[in-house]
Parts: sequence; C-alpha cells; structure tokens
Amino acid sequence: MSLSGPAFPIPAELLPVQEVVGASLRRVEIAFDRALRSDLPPVQRLVQHIESYRGKMLRPALVILSGMAADLHLSDGGGQREVSPLSPPSNNHAHTTTAQSTTPKISEPHITIAAVCEMIHMATLVHDDVLDEADLRRKGATVNRLRGNEAAVILGDYLFSCAYHLCSTLNSQQAALLIGQTGMTLCAGELLQLHHRENLSIDQSTYFEVVRRKTGSLISIACRLGAMQSNTDSATAERLADFGMNIGIAFQIQDDLLDLVGNERIVGKPLRRDLELGKLTLPVIHHLEHATPTARGRTLTLLEQTDLFDAAAARELLEALTSTTSIEFAATKARSLVTQAKSLLAPLTDSPAKKLLLVMADQVVARAF
Amino acid sequence: MSLSGPAFPIPAELLPVQEVVGASLRRVEIAFDRALRSDLPPVQRLVQHIESYRGKMLRPALVILSGMAADLHLSDGGGQREVSPLSPPSNNHAHTTTAQSTTPKISEPHITIAAVCEMIHMATLVHDDVLDEADLRRKGATVNRLRGNEAAVILGDYLFSCAYHLCSTLNSQQAALLIGQTGMTLCAGELLQLHHRENLSIDQSTYFEVVRRKTGSLISIACRLGAMQSNTDSATAERLADFGMNIGIAFQIQDDLLDLVGNERIVGKPLRRDLELGKLTLPVIHHLEHATPTARGRTLTLLEQTDLFDAAAARELLEALTSTTSIEFAATKARSLVTQAKSLLAPLTDSPAKKLLLVMADQVVARAF
Repeated sequence: MSLSGPAFPIPAELLPVQEVVGASLRRVEIAFDRALRSDLPPVQRLVQHIESYRGKMLRPALVILSGMAADLHLSDGGGQREVSPLSPPSNNHAHTTTAQSTTPKISEPHITIAAVCEMIHMATLVHDDVLDEADLRRKGATVNRLRGNEAAVILGDYLFSCAYHLCSTLNSQQAALLIGQTGMTLCAGELLQLHHRENLSIDQSTYFEVVRRKTGSLISIACRLGAMQSNTDSATAERLADFGMNIGIAFQIQDDLLDLVGNERIVGKPLRRDLELGKLTLPVIHHLEHATPTARGRTLTLLEQTDLFDAAAARELLEALTSTTSIEFAATKARSLVTQAKSLLAPLTDSPAKKLLLVMADQVVARAF
Repeated sequence: MSLSGPAFPIPAELLPVQEVVGASLRRVEIAFDRALRSDLPPVQRLVQHIESYRGKMLRPALVILSGMAADLHLSDGGGQREVSPLSPPSNNHAHTTTAQSTTPKISEPHITIAAVCEMIHMATLVHDDVLDEADLRRKGATVNRLRGNEAAVILGDYLFSCAYHLCSTLNSQQAALLIGQTGMTLCAGELLQLHHRENLSIDQSTYFEVVRRKTGSLISIACRLGAMQSNTDSATAERLADFGMNIGIAFQIQDDLLDLVGNERIVGKPLRRDLELGKLTLPVIHHLEHATPTARGRTLTLLEQTDLFDAAAARELLEALTSTTSIEFAATKARSLVTQAKSLLAPLTDSPAKKLLLVMADQVVARAF
C-alpha cells in the first residue's frame, strides 16, 4: 500500500505526518539491510536480490503510525499509563513530542520492530514463491528455476532467523515472545490453508480462521508492538491490535477480489492464481453456499475441470459469482471490517497519525493493486 | 549418535551419567512436543509426523553434558566465577550437585535450550528434505510428493518460529541473540554450499567454511549454551564451544566418508547422494587437488557424466580416491579434530559428564551410521 500516489491523494493536513512516515521507512530499509548483511559474497548477493521484493511496506508503516497515534493519544489524554515497556529504559527513547508537534522523532526501537515485521513478511513471501513456483514446476521447469527454489527455501530461513535475531536486540522478552508466537500462528494458518486446498466444500468459518492467522496476525502484531513501544496503556495497545486484525482480514479479502475481478496489468500478477492453486476464496465460498443446486454443480465442474482458466471459463465463473451477488458480498464484508477497524480508533485522541491510520484503512479496500 | 547400543559399549562407571542424560532427553522430547502443539488438528497431525524425524539427539545430549561438565568443573574447582547467567535468577535452578553426586538434577532451562537446539536442527532437516526431493522431482514426481514438499516448507518455518519462541521463554537476551545468530550462520553456510554446487574446483578452505557454518555452528552453540546456563566462567564456555565446533566438523567429515564408503544398509540412506547433488566433499576435493592431470581428468569426467552412480562408476571412483589416499586423508583429519576437541577439555575437572563427552567425541568418528 503506497501512502501516496495519484490513486490516493492524501489530505494536505496529513502531508507532514506522511513525511515522518516516509523518513521512518527509509530508516527501516537501512536497518533491514544492515541486519541482513553477510560477510560471504554469494550470500550478500542473494540478500541484495531480496530488495526486489520490497513492496508496500504496510507493516512498517503501521508500526510507526500506531506508535505515534498511541503516544500522542497519551500525551494529550494525560491518563494514568499502565506502562508496558518493550525495551529497558536505556534503549527506549520515547517520541519527542510537544503539544503542537506533528513531527515526533520516531524511536530506534520502533524502527527495529518495523524492520522485524517486514522481514518476517518477506520470509513468507520468499517461501510463498517456492510454493507457487512448485505449481509451475509441475508443468515442467528448468534446472535454473529449481536452483532458484532451493536458494529461496534457505534464503527464507535466513530471513526468519535474522528477524528473530534483530528482535532480540531490543532486549524485550515480551516482543520476542509475541514475534515468535506470531511466526507460529501464521505458519499454522498457511498449513491450515494447505490442508484445505482443493476442498470444494470449505466453509466461511474455516476461511476466516486461515485469514486471521495467515494475514491478520502479523498486521495486528505490527500495530500492537508499535503501540506498546510507545509505553501506551494496554487498552490502547489492544485497540490498535484489533484495528490491525480487522484491516488485515479486509486486506486479504481485497486481495481475493482483485484475483477475480482485478485488472491484470494493474494488479501486476496473473489473475485467478488462487483458484489454479486450489485455494477457494470468500466470493467463491459464498457462491457455492448460495447457488442453486444446478448452478453449484456447474461451478464445481468449472473449478474441477481446468487448471488454467481460459477467457470463456473466466467469464462464466464471473457470471456465476455475480448471479449470487458473491462479489458484492465479499466487498461489503471487507468494507464493514474497515468500518469496524476505524471505529476502534474513535476513543484515541485525534492526531495526524490517527487520521493517517484511518486513511490507510480506507485504502485497504479502495486499492486496485 | 546413540549413547549406547552394542556398537558403543559405555564403560560401567559412566552408566549412571548416561542414565541422567537419557532421563533428560525424555524431558527434552516432552518439552519439544509441548512447544510445538497446535490447536488446529491438521497442523497437530503434521507436527506429530515430525516425531518420525527424531534421530540421534546429539545436540540435546551435548547441552546436558556440557552443562553438567561445566557445573561440576566449577563446583570442584572453586575458582572465581565470571557469572554469565542466561536466565534471571528466578528461572535459573542450578544443578543440585554435591561432591560425591554423579546424578545432578538437570535444570529446566537446560532442557529448554536442548529442545531449542534440536528444533532448529529439525527445521533444517525438514527443509533439507525439500531440497533433496527437488532433485527427485526433477526426474518426475507425483502431485502428492509435491504437496508434501509444500507442507514441508511451511512446517520447517513453523519449527523455526517455535524454536525462537521457546528460546524467548528463557528471558535471556544472550541466549536469544546467540540462537538467532546461529540460525543466520547455518543458513549462510547452506547458501554458500548451494553457491558451490557442481563447482568442481572448490577448495578445502571453502569446504571448511561451509562445514563450520552449516554443521559446526549449531553443535558448538549447544555446548556453549549448556555451559553458560550452568553459570560457568567464560573461558570454560569458550572451551566447550570450541569442543563442539571441532566435533561438529569431524561429524560432517564422517558423514561425507559414510556417503562414499559406508554400508548402505547400516547408513540407512542411499550412498553417493552428495555427489549426485553436486556437493563435493573432503575426500573428493583432496583427490582432485592431488591426482595426476590424467587421473584428475578421468575423475572429473566421472563426476560430470552421471547423475546416478552405477556399481562400476562407484568402484572406479573409490579406486581413484584410494590412489591419492584421499579417504585416509579425510579420516585422519576427522580423527585429528576429535583429538583436538578432547584436548580442549583437559583443563576441566574430571567428572563422569566430562568422560562421557570424551566418549561421544570418539563415537563421532567411530560410528558407521
């Protein structure tokens, strides 16, 4: 998710805070690259290749903004803090904020947490590519591609290890436990999804269980750790964690929708990959639950008969999904999750950081890529 | 490495300490299974499948014995301790030792560290299988096998995450940093090895760089953390870490030798896998360095011409290696590393734990599997 660009004009009042986030993300990139650096040239070359994966930096941006929103909330609110410091006092440079300041200094531990979250995300991306390429390989691939996959498996492991090592530099057991737990949760989500591959009768509750774990957990922990590092009260940290979980699930539904109805050129990857990989997404699950027996049978045949959707099959599938308003159902669900997420932030003191979080929440379902 | 069995009779005086290790390893297994447990049935089924990977438990045994040897050393030595506690005092139940006791109680943090080391080892084994099966897959494999690999990638990630989570329960930044660093080191070693696959002019120094990182680092850290958890002085921890590094490298050379000259039935896996996977091992590297130009050319042809060694090619390769005394060279190198490892323990107070470490060091190069 880009924080700017022609598709999403940012209100002028938020430009200063957007600039703070931008500057922080550049620090995150530096911390990220520094942590991964290897003294072995062939390893360093692979690590540099990782930079090509760098995408929306959603999780780091959420760490920074959650930290700022939680901090400003308390600076203004003046309520009693239930201090839950992630780092011991010596490391814990709180934001330098004043009543009128909208450009707080982002602390080094916030940058570290942001880099850790992005690194875990990157590790899962690298390994997802292995899983996805496996499918391509099934249809015959070169040794080069294979070699690439072997490197990808180990490179993902290197990223995981580096993320935990970097997290340990914070000297916060709480952060280390939460990050370790989140790693387990998201792997469990991926394993559950794998278990249900090509299960044409998967239900919505299983779908949401997968998505909460696979996508929601890391986005949620990014918000929670960002808030906790600002020494906020536990209720605020919990609110931001719930905010993250809700936009995380909405983010995944939007991904599902783009895979079905997106513009391939804008999305930047082939459409209908989910179905080719046997992953049933929310619109398809809803459709199968609500179609007439005849229509359901036709869709199941469509899903079973082909690995690669040709234009006619794709059109037929879309018509089927439309007949049960399943696209609209999923889009409405995503929008309602975003509304819920935004309402969770209502009790927080208004601040540019909070406002930018609300804008980001809207972008999750407005994006076309 | 089995700590007993007909091949390796343990001196009678060491039977009590062997029993302590055995009882500790059972606690490690319980801690291991408890840490991995998932509330999702399909994930739990996969996790249980992991038990079939459980092998020699070399690393956990080294954590336990290093802890005991370091602790007894200091109990007797009475020198000033440079305390480097891994866990805060409340968690850190030191061994209950008395002058005459040979059956100290192994502390819970030792069990935790042992489980962490085994879990990281297991994660690399699970991912190694993915890499190895990739080769099989190249020759055409079933979708089932492919599905198995996808699960293996994520399951390995789950194991890594769980290892780091479990390590964080110790609340020792030092242990967390060392374990994270070791994860990075061993991945870097594997990446370096991958980089040199099918490099027929790889030299001994690169080989040892790979082995130190890939195999030595985790075995060394198991010894170091076991010692540190016993609040030993840093010199003793360093000695045990060096001991681990030396037997780790010897262990890998012995693996290389068994892959070339082992008894397939006893080794329990097909021979010459290393060469099929394009991994040149110490005997082969030595041979290529010392053969006459003609013999060298012949061996290179042999290595290049075939993926799968038939009996004639295998015999020819063995004859070539014998002609340059390369098998003997590697075996001598492994034995000398073991001698070096054992001499490192000389300054430690004699104890059954120390004696069992010395026996284990010998077993590293004596084993046929």
